[in-house]
Amino acid sequence: MSLDFELLKVDPESAARRGRLRLPHGVVETPIFMPVGTAASVKAIAPDDLERIGAQIILGNTYHLFLRPGHELVRRHGGLHGFMTWPKPILTDSGGFQVYSLAAARKISEEGVVFRSHLDGSRKLLTPELSIEVQEALGADVIMAFDECPPAGSDRRYFEDSLARTTRWAKRCKDAWHPEGKSSLFGIVQGGLHPDLRRRHAEELAELDLPGYALGGYSVGEPIPSMYESVSTSAPNLPADKPRYLMGVGTPEDLVTCVGLGIDMFDCVLPTRTARNARLYTSEGIVNIKNARYADDPAPLDPACDCYTCKNFSRAYLRHLYAAQELLAYRLNSIHNLAFFLDLMARVRAAIEEGRYAAWSKAWLEERSLRLREQKERA
Amino acid sequence: MSLDFELLKVDPESAARRGRLRLPHGVVETPIFMPVGTAASVKAIAPDDLERIGAQIILGNTYHLFLRPGHELVRRHGGLHGFMTWPKPILTDSGGFQVYSLAAARKISEEGVVFRSHLDGSRKLLTPELSIEVQEALGADVIMAFDECPPAGSDRRYFEDSLARTTRWAKRCKDAWHPEGKSSLFGIVQGGLHPDLRRRHAEELAELDLPGYALGGYSVGEPIPSMYESVSTSAPNLPADKPRYLMGVGTPEDLVTCVGLGIDMFDCVLPTRTARNARLYTSEGIVNIKNARYADDPAPLDPACDCYTCKNFSRAYLRHLYAAQELLAYRLNSIHNLAFFLDLMARVRAAIEEGRYAAWSKAWLEERSLRLREQKERA
Ligand SMILES: [Zn+2]
Ligand SMILES: [Zn+2]
Repeated sequence: MSLDFELLKVDPESAARRGRLRLPHGVVETPIFMPVGTAASVKAIAPDDLERIGAQIILGNTYHLFLRPGHELVRRHGGLHGFMTWPKPILTDSGGFQVYSLAAARKISEEGVVFRSHLDGSRKLLTPELSIEVQEALGADVIMAFDECPPAGSDRRYFEDSLARTTRWAKRCKDAWHPEGKSSLFGIVQGGLHPDLRRRHAEELAELDLPGYALGGYSVGEPIPSMYESVSTSAPNLPADKPRYLMGVGTPEDLVTCVGLGIDMFDCVLPTRTARNARLYTSEGIVNIKNARYADDPAPLDPACDCYTCKNFSRAYLRHLYAAQELLAYRLNSIHNLAFFLDLMARVRAAIEEGRYAAWSKAWLEERSLRLREQKERA
Repeated sequence: MSLDFELLKVDPESAARRGRLRLPHGVVETPIFMPVGTAASVKAIAPDDLERIGAQIILGNTYHLFLRPGHELVRRHGGLHGFMTWPKPILTDSGGFQVYSLAAARKISEEGVVFRSHLDGSRKLLTPELSIEVQEALGADVIMAFDECPPAGSDRRYFEDSLARTTRWAKRCKDAWHPEGKSSLFGIVQGGLHPDLRRRHAEELAELDLPGYALGGYSVGEPIPSMYESVSTSAPNLPADKPRYLMGVGTPEDLVTCVGLGIDMFDCVLPTRTARNARLYTSEGIVNIKNARYADDPAPLDPACDCYTCKNFSRAYLRHLYAAQELLAYRLNSIHNLAFFLDLMARVRAAIEEGRYAAWSKAWLEERSLRLREQKERA
């Protein structure tokens, strides 16, 4: 087993956990946010920027890398670490989520999923075994079991069938996996907003005794309070001595809330995607840097941030870069948004260490909500 | 006078000069290549990258900055140096060239040029006085006189009228200029491929005793040997004790050749523009990184280069980034191409210092030509 998870502290008044994950490519202090590097690149920024903003682990997308440039090519170039020159830990997803959200003409059977590539329309078959083969070729520190994420509106009957299949697929993933290698396999608990299905699925997967577990199938359009409610009942069903990963979530508010529910790991395209759309998270709220109100603003984007962007450039300059569609805008915006998310997680960890996460997070969420409301009123 | 130009060495067997230009924002070792930062950004890269590749002076485009974000805004933000956070020297062009090449419905009169903005179609008037006002507001270390660059196919009669007007405009620029400020004004000698017109215009402008002089109107479609021939007869007409700047030129071969003809300063969009189109200059020739032949190539882009791109990434990765249209491709490609141009100029300066520029440049040009020919044959 190449993963070691140490639980350093549990918050006395919430389920928040401060942990340390030892992986072949380094140590990850949890709770952690993982920037998404879909196609072997965290969009618009290079490893030097990632190091500078303190990224500890990043995510790669199996679906994208399987289609282009192909896992065998990546393997020949030293795996994802060697190919993209990122020396620290990497987690890859199973490809399942993108097959369902990006590919066309997908068809699910017991064997796996047949789909057409969104790049060239070619017909592909992704199975649990192939997903593991691809992820092991990519050489990630953490790999994910191949699962189905049922459409949000599916009925209970469909959920039950799907969950049973996902459990069978998880077993096939475990069989295909080489636990003596450097990749640790995590299982993915599904079940939508059905607490009993989530519990049963968590129990089934826990029997496989995998190195870690994830909650999947959130952030697919459900109301945010329902997501929080479901995570709060589902997280405790995951083995307490293993890392817990909430997939594809979320906003800064989501992270602070779900850490309090016992989650250790997060990933989301939100900070990088919104950065490319000029939407920037700051300690004062959300800055839409396209807005003409910033055209002559000499202040840094976020006076409380010490990222490269905030230490060197004004809002006026960032607004100009975006207006002029300069490529530099994407890099500077992405650096800042990721720094905001990673700095937030550092504060989250500090609050847990000090045994005051419940109070800290309540105060943070209230202040954040106030700031966003004030900002809305001013707009 | 805020400019000091020291001629350190002249090559014994060519007109190559090794100089040192002291400007308000720093020292520039000549001959030098100036990366182009059109709209207050050297496309796709930030000041940290520029520092890392050893850029000594960069260029800003008055036409673009006048239209967006406007020179008064830039002035309020500390000039171009403060606005884009570049602490080293900056040169701005006069806006003339872009008015002729980018703007619509331009109309030249004695007063100046009326044109329509390529951004919003609004009607603008650019005069010699306004060009100087804009450039002084931008706060560049070197500013350029407002000139006309006659279309390549103009007849001799048009050239004569245009040159006379450009001389009158240069006088108006000198009158509008504040020589006690931090911006040094350079005159621009035009005259197409007419040696006698070039000589007469150089003499007229030399009488104005400006801090430096440029040759304009090249790289507009004329055959390369004709350009070299014209530069070789025109450069000696520029005052020998002042910096000589060849505008908008060129390829690595152009730089090496024209240094031998007595040129000290160059600028061109070539390295950054071609980088964005996947065309990369290397010690081995030209690499079109789009090409499938690089898909599995583990070698660095240029084994002889020690830029961030070459020190960290493989051709296979760069090819993947470009194929996947990842934004990072533009940054990494641009860093390398600029490093190639700036490293070449460092070698040029060393060869002049060692008193062997004529031999060095001849050998370099022969080897370069051989490499490109070999590459063509292999393709
Ligand atoms: Zn910042
Ligand atoms: Zn390089």
